[in-house]
Formats: sequence, C-alpha cells, structure tokens
Amino acid sequence: MLFFTQCFGAVLDLIHLRFQHYKAKRVFSAAGQLVCVVNPTHSLKYAPTRCAAAQTSTEQGVLPPCHHHEAVYDPQLVPCMCPLFSCPWEGHLEVVVSHLRQTHHINILQGAEIVFLATDMHLPAPTDWIIMHSCLGHQFLLVLRKQEKYEGHPQFFATMMLIGTPTQADNFTYRLELNRNQRRLKWEATPRSVLECVDSVISDGDCLVLNTSLAQLFSDNGSLAIGIAITTSKVHNAEADM
Amino acid sequence: MLFFTQCFGAVLDLIHLRFQHYKAKRVFSAAGQLVCVVNPTHSLKYAPTRCAAAQTSTEQGVLPPCHHHEAVYDPQLVPCMCPLFSCPWEGHLEVVVSHLRQTHHINILQGAEIVFLATDMHLPAPTDWIIMHSCLGHQFLLVLRKQEKYEGHPQFFATMMLIGTPTQADNFTYRLELNRNQRRLKWEATPRSVLECVDSVISDGDCLVLNTSLAQLFSDNGSLAIGIAITTSKVHNAEADM
Repeated sequence: MLFFTQCFGAVLDLIHLRFQHYKAKRVFSAAGQLVCVVNPTHSLKYAPTRCAAAQTSTEQGVLPPCHHHEAVYDPQLVPCMCPLFSCPWEGHLEVVVSHLRQTHHINILQGAEIVFLATDMHLPAPTDWIIMHSCLGHQFLLVLRKQEKYEGHPQFFATMMLIGTPTQADNFTYRLELNRNQRRLKWEATPRSVLECVDSVISDGDCLVLNTSLAQLFSDNGSLAIGIAITTSKVHNAEADM
Repeated sequence: MLFFTQCFGAVLDLIHLRFQHYKAKRVFSAAGQLVCVVNPTHSLKYAPTRCAAAQTSTEQGVLPPCHHHEAVYDPQLVPCMCPLFSCPWEGHLEVVVSHLRQTHHINILQGAEIVFLATDMHLPAPTDWIIMHSCLGHQFLLVLRKQEKYEGHPQFFATMMLIGTPTQADNFTYRLELNRNQRRLKWEATPRSVLECVDSVISDGDCLVLNTSLAQLFSDNGSLAIGIAITTSKVHNAEADM
C-alpha cells in the first residue's frame, strides 16, 4: 500500500514538473530554449568556515560582504563559491566546476539561451537557487538569492558569475529577462568573476533586484522563470589570457 | 555689478544644462532623440486635500495607496494628478493636460522616443520628477518618485500613465531604459490610466523599481537619464473608445 502511495506521489510530482516546463516554455516562446527547474537551497550561514566566521555579528538574514581576497592565503586557491559557504573546500579555479557538480550536485546546462525556473519562491530568506551554465567555451554560475537587506522585507537578487578570472569575465555580457502578464524586465551586465564574492555583488546591489511584489507579478504558481542569454562583448580572443 | 553676477550665473547654468544634454545624448546615442532635463518637485503631502486627508495617519515619507475612485463623487470629474496632490483642482479628463501645463508648468514633449534626464537625485524623499509626453495621438504622464517604503531606505519608482481611460491605456506599451557603464535595465509594461492613482501603482510595486545603490550605478553626476519609448500594443483603433 505504501509502495503504491509513493508511486502515486512520484507521478504527481512528474506531472507538476511537466506542467511547470510547459508554462515556462509558453512564456519564453523562442523555439529550442532549454528550461531547467531549479529547487532552492537554504543558506547554511552558521557553519564554522572562514566566510561564516566574519558574519557572526550580523543580524539574522542579513549577509554582509564576504571578503574572500583577504582570507585566501594562497592566491592560486579558490574557496568554495559563497552561495554554499558552509563548505570548507578550496581548490584551483580549474576544479571548481567538478567540485560544484560532484559535492553539491549543482546541474550544468549547455546552450547560449536557457530558461531558469526557480521553484518555491515563497520560502523564507535566506534562500539560494543556483545553476551552472556552460556556454561559449566557459562555465558560468547563476545565483538567485532571496535575502532581507531590510529586516522583514525580503528581496530577490539575481546575478551571473564567470568561473574564471575578472579579465576573462570582461569579454562577456549576460542578460536576465523576466516576461509575464504584459510586463517585461531585462537586466544586462558584464558578469563578475567568482573570485569576487557573490555576497559583495549583492550587497553592492549591482545585479537584478526584485522587490517581493514585483517577484510575485512575474511568478506563476510560486515559480519564477528567468530567461538567460550570454554573448561575447568583445571581438577579443577570450582564450588569450587563460 | 549685481546684474553682471546674475548674467554670469545664468551663463553657468546654461553651460551645465548643455553639458547634461550632451552626456544624456552620448548615453542614448540614437540620432534624433529629444533629451529633456527634468527638475525635482517636492511632494506637498500635508496639504488639506481629499488625497492628503487619507494619509494623515501614515509615517513620514511613506505614501499609502490613494483611493481616488472612492473620493470622486462625479465619475466624470478627475482630480488633479496624485504627484501634485496638494492641488484641489478637479475637472474632466480632456482638460487635465491644460491644467497640468498652465497651473503646474509641467513640460510636454513630442516624439515616440525621448530621454528624461532627472536632476538632483540626491534630494531627500519624498520627491517627484514629472513630465508629459505627447505621442501616437495621446498624452502620457511620466512620474519618477523617490520614496521611503522602508524607513531610512529610499527607493526610486518610475511609471508611465495615460491621460485617458484604462481601455485606451490597454492599447499601448511603454518602455523605460537605463543604460550606463556596461549595464542596461529595461522595463516594459502597459501604461495605467491616470484614473488609477499613481500612489497605488507605486505601492503595488508594479513599475520600474531601483534601490539607491542601483540608481547610483546608473546616475551620472547626480542625474539619471531614462530613455522612454511608447508603442501601440494592439492593431485595434485607439480612438474607437474615446
């Protein structure tokens, strides 16, 4: 009996997932766009890591800038990405992708244009939605974060970071697009390097920022579909400085 | 001597204005775009009008929704636009434009695409920047407002409203665009009718919303250039329901 109940639950989940895919595809009608459903990750901000240690004095839900550069003693080593800062791992830039995939099971998607479908937008802050995006010979990290910069008023912050150096990041432009209910919001910028901490980008507000009310206007049944596109911003050979 | 000092001051102002025009034109490089410098208007929120009366219980700088529809007894009469709600005037929709021009000296600009250059972004909230825009046979009102929805954290809200009915407004799409320093932010939506109060649109967050940090990233020397474009969203004859 338990087996049948579980099977029925799994079938319902699949139907719900398929329905979400369909909805996101309808919104982003460009043929061939890959829709990826991304589930939330709660930030484990009290774990005793270098990054978390700097945050012990802060109030709940408010994440201050995290100064990686000060904490990294070997400049060749990169700590684990900030959205998963409970992880004590550190390694070279070249092995960041395999660490994120293997240890944190973060999906990696191929293609110049994809749709990031973040589920369960109602979950309390702090919450992250993370995915990797492989495009134009490089890997990018998309982070959507729900955070309370002002107590009691959660906001959503979305940014894209290159798993590479700042010089390499300067060669690209990323676009995030929300489109629903006769409203469209687009953000275009140069991605930051993962060597600059995502917390700094968010505390600087140098990313796509959504109030809860605006996020609700763009959400559909608790999910937010973000269209992502990456282009090269210079004719410059991106591989030259690798 | 005083005359010469005044003349010198006027010449300096003209040079500064010309410099701002040049900068905005450089950012919005499309040929033929009209750049309009818009100075701020402080909201006179304690004036004893119908709209202000509903706001006496609110904390400083926080403007709640203003329910025009409840207060207007003759449905043919429209009160003065909310951004200037200290004004006791009311009249028919057809004479709103002449009232705004003659009594409040709000400029009206022609053209499908213009650049709205709001000056003195540093001024404390609440502050409004207002202009009228004549385009496609209709008049629109652009409102940029600096307001503290969360005490101590001013935000900027920009929206476009049709000086016409909600049915007429449904025929248009407006676009607001910020573009500076390798960052671009675009908001597209259907304009609301001025019969719906601008305060409601802002409190609903159904407009372009900028945190102070993001506004600073897009500002140049204390001024924010917003590119505006209006298009028809339907093949439907907009005049049919006039």
